Amino acid sequence: MKFATLRDGSPDGALVVVSTDLRRAVKATGVADTLLAALESWERSEPRLLDLARSLNDGAIAGEFDFAGATLGPPLPRTWQWLDGSAFHSHGALMQRAFKHDHLDGAQTRPLMYQGGSDDFLGPSEDMPLPSETDGIDFEAELAVVVDRVPMGTSSATALEHVKLVMLANDASLRSHALPEKKTGFGWIHAKPATSFSPVAVTPDELGPAWRVGRVHLPMRVFWNGRAFGHPDAGEMGFGFHELIAHAAYSRNLSAGTIIGSGTISNENYRSVGSACIAERRAIEIEAHGHAVTEYMRFGDRVRIEMLDVNGNSIFGAIDQRIVPARR
Amino acid sequence: MKFATLRDGSPDGALVVVSTDLRRAVKATGVADTLLAALESWERSEPRLLDLARSLNDGAIAGEFDFAGATLGPPLPRTWQWLDGSAFHSHGALMQRAFKHDHLDGAQTRPLMYQGGSDDFLGPSEDMPLPSETDGIDFEAELAVVVDRVPMGTSSATALEHVKLVMLANDASLRSHALPEKKTGFGWIHAKPATSFSPVAVTPDELGPAWRVGRVHLPMRVFWNGRAFGHPDAGEMGFGFHELIAHAAYSRNLSAGTIIGSGTISNENYRSVGSACIAERRAIEIEAHGHAVTEYMRFGDRVRIEMLDVNGNSIFGAIDQRIVPARR
Repeated sequence: MKFATLRDGSPDGALVVVSTDLRRAVKATGVADTLLAALESWERSEPRLLDLARSLNDGAIAGEFDFAGATLGPPLPRTWQWLDGSAFHSHGALMQRAFKHDHLDGAQTRPLMYQGGSDDFLGPSEDMPLPSETDGIDFEAELAVVVDRVPMGTSSATALEHVKLVMLANDASLRSHALPEKKTGFGWIHAKPATSFSPVAVTPDELGPAWRVGRVHLPMRVFWNGRAFGHPDAGEMGFGFHELIAHAAYSRNLSAGTIIGSGTISNENYRSVGSACIAERRAIEIEAHGHAVTEYMRFGDRVRIEMLDVNGNSIFGAIDQRIVPARR
Repeated sequence: MKFATLRDGSPDGALVVVSTDLRRAVKATGVADTLLAALESWERSEPRLLDLARSLNDGAIAGEFDFAGATLGPPLPRTWQWLDGSAFHSHGALMQRAFKHDHLDGAQTRPLMYQGGSDDFLGPSEDMPLPSETDGIDFEAELAVVVDRVPMGTSSATALEHVKLVMLANDASLRSHALPEKKTGFGWIHAKPATSFSPVAVTPDELGPAWRVGRVHLPMRVFWNGRAFGHPDAGEMGFGFHELIAHAAYSRNLSAGTIIGSGTISNENYRSVGSACIAERRAIEIEAHGHAVTEYMRFGDRVRIEMLDVNGNSIFGAIDQRIVPARR
């Protein structure tokens, strides 16, 4: 199944089921008004949503509309928790070397994770309003999963049962604030503005054999102002989502609708596949030339993030959005 | 006005208005079913809640019940965002000296703040289930404010207009995880289990002259297993709540219902007034004797947190809860 959310003026939007080919959609009214409501009653709503998705994929049904013309929010415009990992070892190691971060014991055995704002997400084509061009505006292309309720103490052995949906994220960062906030140890407040998500969230079965060992084994395609920036493989995650979920649930319950992120996709062979965020490219430049060449984003810049299946079809639709100044 | 939330099996509970003397309460059904709903429509709901509160305080009304016998959740069982500051300089300085944290530039000018789980709060008398006694279980007595929607870029000059409610918090910590997680820079996931709140949240006018310059100028009374542990004055906050709110809203909008915390209450004269968390007492012991004497909490231990007005009346009711092992 594939799900999207229409902006309709309400904070949670209106849930729609989308055809596998992303061409057609139908409102899920009658089953669940919102995706959050569907996740909170998944056992009851899933079979009825499956019926609706099958009917839609089988042919024309009442109420269907052209998905390309829809005004989309993110699949979950707001939810109860957003916990983002940093699960790609090549990214962590590179950033540490280039920016001289302190060595971190246990980086290979203990996932890094921060909690971000989850109440004001952006849709795939919505402008991203930010306070200043001087903040070091960066994109971060990531995978994210949505879970149902995960009780405290859930182990990685059973954690994947809780993964109900997968989607793409642009976890934007304000890099000028990242290092000062990192030094506090308290995580990121200024450095992490609203995160954006792909047009649709999909159930793991839509990924076919690419979904295995808690990872999505496909390249993430990133474009900056229309130019290819990187296509690292998301399958190279140092920790699988089952390990990230278990880490998150050590001392807390996770409510249904909690989103867990992978962190910036990154590969060991970054010289050939490129990167999924500007900071990593700058780190590569610093390693190669002693200084960074690539500047961060400017107002008006666009980032496009997409993932294709092995046949070249877009799985999630594309995040394609513009950076704009926040109104003050 | 004073508000509380009854546990009724629903995730957000049932909103009640409580008399100023905390003796009687009445359901707010008809105005707003939940406190979150009231906050999300504050302009419309406030005058009607005020009418209800005045009627209740004036004398017997239909539907009133004995507040002492109510089964309470926290005023907001879940909300969209929980951002906790660390706004008491004496606490930060002491912890840095005793535990040899790195010196932090700008600690006096830039508030420390982390984002914690906001989807699974505990009520004032509810048991706190935790994974292990060996995690260094600590309480932290804090003040917290609840805001209506705060647009990105709101300045400290206007931020106090957004404060709708004030309450007490026990922001429990698992200290064994705090330092390793601090070193990552990513903030706290394992170290911060569910936060607990006082029986009632009050509008700032209920604090009278004690509410000024974005601070509550009254002592926080903390008891551990029935013994007085500390009574530091909450008015000694190094940053006022207006500054914490403006800090939080630099690059994000805050949804109505967002909770902003003060961090552990702490005073410069900690030797006479005591502390509001065990870690601080341990830091004082380390400074005095070279090693900590006081151990962290054990299962079965209780903490009580309360604030009295100048006449000795409880303003918020008391957090009084027990630490228990989580069921695995």
